[in-house]
Amino acid sequence: MLETTIAAIQPPDESAMADARALHGRLTKPAGSLGALEELSVRLAGLAGTCPPPLPEPAAVAIFAGDHGVHAQGVTPWPQEVTGQMIGNFLAGGAVVNAFARQAGASVTVVDVGVATPTPAGPVQPAAETSGPVVLDPSTPRLVAASVRRGTRDLAVTAALTRDEARAAVQTGIRIADELIDAGAAILLTGDMGIGNTTPAAALIAAFTGADPLDATGRGTGVDDPTYARKVAVVRAALARHAPDPADPLGVLAAVGGLEHAALAGLILGAAARRTPVLLDGVIAVSAALAAAAFAPDAVGAMVAGHRSAEPGATVALRHLGLDPLIDLGLRLGEGTGALLALPVVTGAVRVLHEVATFDSAGVAEK
Amino acid sequence: MLETTIAAIQPPDESAMADARALHGRLTKPAGSLGALEELSVRLAGLAGTCPPPLPEPAAVAIFAGDHGVHAQGVTPWPQEVTGQMIGNFLAGGAVVNAFARQAGASVTVVDVGVATPTPAGPVQPAAETSGPVVLDPSTPRLVAASVRRGTRDLAVTAALTRDEARAAVQTGIRIADELIDAGAAILLTGDMGIGNTTPAAALIAAFTGADPLDATGRGTGVDDPTYARKVAVVRAALARHAPDPADPLGVLAAVGGLEHAALAGLILGAAARRTPVLLDGVIAVSAALAAAAFAPDAVGAMVAGHRSAEPGATVALRHLGLDPLIDLGLRLGEGTGALLALPVVTGAVRVLHEVATFDSAGVAEK
Repeated sequence: MLETTIAAIQPPDESAMADARALHGRLTKPAGSLGALEELSVRLAGLAGTCPPPLPEPAAVAIFAGDHGVHAQGVTPWPQEVTGQMIGNFLAGGAVVNAFARQAGASVTVVDVGVATPTPAGPVQPAAETSGPVVLDPSTPRLVAASVRRGTRDLAVTAALTRDEARAAVQTGIRIADELIDAGAAILLTGDMGIGNTTPAAALIAAFTGADPLDATGRGTGVDDPTYARKVAVVRAALARHAPDPADPLGVLAAVGGLEHAALAGLILGAAARRTPVLLDGVIAVSAALAAAAFAPDAVGAMVAGHRSAEPGATVALRHLGLDPLIDLGLRLGEGTGALLALPVVTGAVRVLHEVATFDSAGVAEK
Repeated sequence: MLETTIAAIQPPDESAMADARALHGRLTKPAGSLGALEELSVRLAGLAGTCPPPLPEPAAVAIFAGDHGVHAQGVTPWPQEVTGQMIGNFLAGGAVVNAFARQAGASVTVVDVGVATPTPAGPVQPAAETSGPVVLDPSTPRLVAASVRRGTRDLAVTAALTRDEARAAVQTGIRIADELIDAGAAILLTGDMGIGNTTPAAALIAAFTGADPLDATGRGTGVDDPTYARKVAVVRAALARHAPDPADPLGVLAAVGGLEHAALAGLILGAAARRTPVLLDGVIAVSAALAAAAFAPDAVGAMVAGHRSAEPGATVALRHLGLDPLIDLGLRLGEGTGALLALPVVTGAVRVLHEVATFDSAGVAEK
């Protein structure tokens, strides 16, 4: 399934991109006056293979949740139970991601891909292959039980996952992409929850980009100086111990990744294979995007960088991917919040190609 | 009316701001993890004088349109008739501002405050003092006929406006703010249309900030090198000729401003007097915001910078006002498009204070 998904990912359609550029020149606005929105709409035409590309409606957020053995190294001040507790908050609609999703009209799917504690009661659906039809309902968050294992092993001591476990998580992400797109989603937004998950994200970013762990590692949800020094040391030691090969993304994910990181890489690959845009959230998402790009370089064509996380590793990863973020407001919350803030920008960029009059049709003179 | 509006503008309510900061510390997210959105929501609480501040819904865009005598100096390649033609496009719903306003659910009011050519037929309403009740209808743009004169005089030759004309335009802006807020608008968005209007904007920015005309002047909707050099020279000569006093904002607006710039300054003052946020678009808006701040320094408390225009003068003005823009995507279209793109960010920032659960209520552990 992973291999067939990778094989289905195509380069952008140059003809649709040329059509979008030509259309922009006829619309009632000075050429180039919409800045980055023009190039974004051209990229989305290339991804869809048609101009104008479809409006990205409805939108679906997929939040992958997992826990991390490296929590034992004291890399975060938050207790591990918060991962499961926040799933309860997502299902009750009380988190920031819920507020932003309601505003944007996006559905929220929470996927337990490896939480350590039992996930709370909620409208649970089993993994896609055994469930009935999925309904995208912005008013009711949905839980998918797809746990690969109850948290990773401690990457400071051993490989976080086996290759088979990493593959299972990637394939869960692909399955979720397929089920959301089959249910009608025209854009997928990445979300994540996992106490301690900025540590494997930093390790993934260092492994795929070659950046020094000091530049790839940030303070996550707010760690003090000694904890930060410990976190950098853990990342540096893990890279030295495992020596992950960036040309073997499954091996990198297994050695130093997380289950939610692996699943997000799968979601991105699944979206790209379906020529559907995937709006990336913060540092966890872009670390997973590096893995997706290592599996299939053309997957970058499906990626839109929602925002620039305050985590320094996010900027390292975005530079490596060649992506410019749409929003840059110092967010470092995760959950999908930065992607949701950027969604109206993406929709607006596409809407221009659908709805704006041409100089000819509007009777407006050109310069 | 101008003087009573200025007198009504109050400093922010520190107690409401403290309440908003304290509430942010109890919500289910790491402290500070929403970056600039947290401080924005605190500012809006201070403006409203209550925590949480009201959601900025419904939103109303006011596009002030005017023409410019300085067009005769060859500062733009676009013919002057385009101002009136674009009003027709706005009323027909074909412009980019219409597409973005439909997406955001914002109403569009077009105010002819000084267009040179007769404005096209449309759902015309007279100025507020003689009209019936205003209805905010996102699906039907509305034209308000409030022309002070059919375009300014050429600021390269003489004062663009008399003080009385400038005052009339400012008061039109105040009236429009009042009528939109009376009709229910919870946030006002600035829009503008006027071929040649980046030249007076540059002059206003240089006059109010002391910046060199070279740093305050940009290429507007796309001028070539000789036109740009001419434009800078026109701005420099106008400042030398008129020597506008930044402590006399009405005098500055009269000497080197435009009717839409003056009306936008009035809109901002009117919003501030009603403790209603005003979301600024691009370089025309921020040049008018400098005038508003010169009339009433506390008016800055009502301003939210929607985006950073590609015009260099916008950055000069934002720095002078102490405002950080929400969106920075190289837009240089005007019309209100950059403000509309930023509106969901403002709404999201406020929504967090209304809808997100606290650690206590959600049963989530703290670090």
